[in-house]
Parts: sequence; structure tokens; C-alpha cells
Amino acid sequence: MLSESQNGFFISFEGSEGCGKSTQIALLVNALRAEGRDALLVREPGGTPLGEQIRHLLKHAPEGRNMTPEAELLLFAASRAQLAREIIQPALAAGRIVISDRFLDSTTVYQGVARRIPSEAVDLINHFAAGDRLPDVTFLLDMDPVAAMERARRRNEAIDRMEQEPLDFFHAVRDGYLALAQRHSDRICVIDASQDQSTVSTSIRQELLQRCHGLFSPNGI
Amino acid sequence: MLSESQNGFFISFEGSEGCGKSTQIALLVNALRAEGRDALLVREPGGTPLGEQIRHLLKHAPEGRNMTPEAELLLFAASRAQLAREIIQPALAAGRIVISDRFLDSTTVYQGVARRIPSEAVDLINHFAAGDRLPDVTFLLDMDPVAAMERARRRNEAIDRMEQEPLDFFHAVRDGYLALAQRHSDRICVIDASQDQSTVSTSIRQELLQRCHGLFSPNGI
Repeated sequence: MLSESQNGFFISFEGSEGCGKSTQIALLVNALRAEGRDALLVREPGGTPLGEQIRHLLKHAPEGRNMTPEAELLLFAASRAQLAREIIQPALAAGRIVISDRFLDSTTVYQGVARRIPSEAVDLINHFAAGDRLPDVTFLLDMDPVAAMERARRRNEAIDRMEQEPLDFFHAVRDGYLALAQRHSDRICVIDASQDQSTVSTSIRQELLQRCHGLFSPNGI
Repeated sequence: MLSESQNGFFISFEGSEGCGKSTQIALLVNALRAEGRDALLVREPGGTPLGEQIRHLLKHAPEGRNMTPEAELLLFAASRAQLAREIIQPALAAGRIVISDRFLDSTTVYQGVARRIPSEAVDLINHFAAGDRLPDVTFLLDMDPVAAMERARRRNEAIDRMEQEPLDFFHAVRDGYLALAQRHSDRICVIDASQDQSTVSTSIRQELLQRCHGLFSPNGI
């Protein structure tokens, strides 16, 4: 357990496809294990049986690109509502560390900024879905969208619905993330993800050392 | 086409399981056909390929009764957002009659009143999902929940997640519907669904004759 106050510690990772979230999450989990800590990993959309079915719908919807932005936003929110209440909140209440691969900021940026759904509606639905407990810290892995897409393609990942967007979409996503990070500079920490993996990983651990005393010992960085 | 203004006419049916919605919708469609009119039938949740998959999730979710009320509400809303934009709004714009088996009032009552989600959040998400075009008239088929459940059971319908609720839930649903009908008495028309089928059907056609000139000829009632 992280603390006697049983508040746990909630970390989310954000960024475009190809920014290296999965790699950095794996490196962080290994580093935490080396410190004798376990962490609960979840992902969005998904993370619960219901959420994984919603994830499948979002990636392979019969409508394909004709899924309306409103339906898309509400499906992401439904997955989040279940994940927050079934998994994340109980784990935090038990004092655990929770690491989420994407959380509500993805919706703000992908559906709000890039799909142009009014921000008031996005914010209200986001907070309705997420409930009161937001991440204690969010790492935004920022890099040029062209380089990020190139990296994603090199991994030979199946190109799903999200990855069929034009490049303009991903530029809007990057700009949206950076603007959001400015508005929530206390929570969102921007990391230059074009650096090599170990430099990025060290930056993340240093930031965590400052933000959560006891999560890492200084010599664990 | 119903009118030169290309506004179509949008009818929704509401009420508890067993209130006779399906029967009355079929009788209305037959009566419209006898007048030489076609009507587009849709249902909620569902009515689109995406919506039918969401319907399946809602009825057979792996979480069963542990699906959170918030996730449930957001899934209904996602189905509605797709149905409204992909099917209903284009049909109305082409001047067609659209009949929906449930629409946004079901969410207000089932998730808002019976599951106790705050009404402000329900209303905002409902209108975000439904868009600007609400039904021109909504028929609330009202009857005692015990009699309605008995009728549903006599039809030997598979008992799904919704039908496993305690009776209190359905009393709250009925009270919620009647309160909503009072608040929106211009749109929602309460019909005593304990009457025999042909009496209920005649009441519905008489109401439509008054509300939409040209939908029925007076001798079609």
C-alpha cells in the first residue's frame, strides 16, 4: 500500500498513436517492481469485460467511418464509467497505484478538439463518466505526428478505424493535447517523446519522485 | 411525403415492459398503410448496425447487474446518437413518418428516476444524444406494473437483464413516466393501456388525427 490514507496514486498516459505509451508504461511498471511496488494497469477504452466489448465496437464498428462523433464520444464515456467505478476507484481506495493507458483527456482531445464537439458537452460527459477521482498526474508523451505515425507503422500494427484518419486530424490532436496541458499544468506533465526510450523513462520517474514522495527512492531513478 | 415543408412526423411510444407497445405500433402501421402511407419503424436501443450491437451489450453484458448506471445511460445515449443522425433525421428531412419504439423519455425515466442519476446530467446527455429533433408526439402506454409484468411473462419472453428488476423499480418507472407526461403535456399523450387493444388503438389514431392534419382521414379512425 502506498499510504495510510488509502488514497492510492493514479497515473495516466496520453499521446498520439506511436508516441511510445505502451513502452513507457512497461518500463515504469518494471521500475516500480524493482522498488517492491505493484501497480494495476488498465487501458481505455476497455479494462473491464464490458469496456473490452465497447473497445471492439469502437475499433470494428459496422458503421466504420460513418459512426457519428456523438456516438463515438458516448461509447468512450460508457467504457470509462464502468472502468472508473468497477476497477480504478476500488483499487485507489485500497491504496494501490493505478496506471491507465489513456483516460479522460483522450476524449477531450480526440472527440472535443479533433472532431469539434463543443467543449462544454465534452467536459460534462467526461466528468459524469470519470466521477470525482481524476489522475494525480498525467504524462503527455508529445511528438511530431508524422514521426509518431511512422513509428506506429513500423510496428506493423493492424490499421484500425482510428488509424485511417488524415494527418490533419493528428496535428489537431497534438495541438489539442498541448493546449490542454497548459490549462491543467498542475496535473499534466509534457514529456518530449522524440527522445530515446531511457531518457523518456528517466524523466517520468524523476517527475514521479517529486510528485509522490515514497513512490520511488531517489536511487531508483 | 407528408408535407411540402419536408418536416416529416416523428412518433415515439413509451411505457413499461408488457404495456403493449409492440402491438400498438403494429396496429398503427397497418392503419397508416390502409391510408396509403408508409412509416419507418425504429427501436431503441438499436435501429442501426451499431445500435443493435449496443442493444446486445445492454441485454447480455458480461457484468450483468454490476453494469454501473452511468455506463448503462451512456450506452443508451450512444445508440440514440447514431440512430437519430443516421436514420431518423434523414427520414424526417425527406418528409417521412418515423415511429420509434422508445426514445429519450425511456432514459429519463429508467436511468434518471429509477436508477437515481441526477436529472440535470440525464437531460443534458439525452439532448446531446438526440440532437434537436424531438418526437412530435409521444404515446405513453400507462398501466399497473404488476399487470404489465404478468402480460410480459404470458408472452414467454426471455427474461433479460432489465426484466430481473424488483417490482419497486417498475413502480418508480411508472411514476416517473407520469410525472414526465405532466411536465411535457404538449408532447406526451397518456393512454390507458389496460383497455382492450382496439380501444387503445382507436385512441391513438384519434389523437394523431387531431395533432397532424392529413395523417389520417377522419373515416380512417
